[in-house]
Amino acid sequence: MGTTKPNHAELVENLRIELRSGCLVLAVLAELRAEHYGYTLRKKLGELGLEIEENTLYPMLRRLEAQGLLASEWREEDRRKKRFYRLAAAGERVLEELFSEWDGIYRALQRIRRKDTSP
Amino acid sequence: MGTTKPNHAELVENLRIELRSGCLVLAVLAELRAEHYGYTLRKKLGELGLEIEENTLYPMLRRLEAQGLLASEWREEDRRKKRFYRLAAAGERVLEELFSEWDGIYRALQRIRRKDTSP
Repeated sequence: MGTTKPNHAELVENLRIELRSGCLVLAVLAELRAEHYGYTLRKKLGELGLEIEENTLYPMLRRLEAQGLLASEWREEDRRKKRFYRLAAAGERVLEELFSEWDGIYRALQRIRRKDTSP
Repeated sequence: MGTTKPNHAELVENLRIELRSGCLVLAVLAELRAEHYGYTLRKKLGELGLEIEENTLYPMLRRLEAQGLLASEWREEDRRKKRFYRLAAAGERVLEELFSEWDGIYRALQRIRRKDTSP
């Protein structure tokens, strides 16, 4: 193909982002079983090694709320109004279903990974 | 927000596809440590529970080859020409890096999942 090959680091970075992006929704829903506002949620995820950009997280939170999976509430804390998010009832069901999907993916990848590939 | 909420099944299906799509590249690269042509690769992944549409898999294989991660070769088998794919040397390095990313995501999700969320 005629396109310029991206360099190795750039390529790996794009694949890592692709791998991570679908998993982030699961992490966000699971973490929001406890209430958070955007900043503390992002900090929590970062501490766990799941760094997420503000301009990825905030639209995701709004989307998940529009889908009925999250509920939010504006409240004052430290003299500032903050929007607190929490998993909604519909989100709990979805979270369970996504974890079951995740378990399937994990088992499949473990089986592929352990496979002896010698001819 | 004014948009119609998708029904529950549709919503879960979209989130499952999102969760799975990034992981599929990892599964494809890992499975191609052994040579396959498209059909047998798709069958293998399906047997492992990672169903993938032809129109997702084939463009992915071409993209990964264009990126130098896969090598392919046309060969005749059972009197039909088939394109056989296999992990290229650059792909082996990338696969290792993606598995290390995957391990990080897995550990993070396990920690979130096990967390006691009672107040």
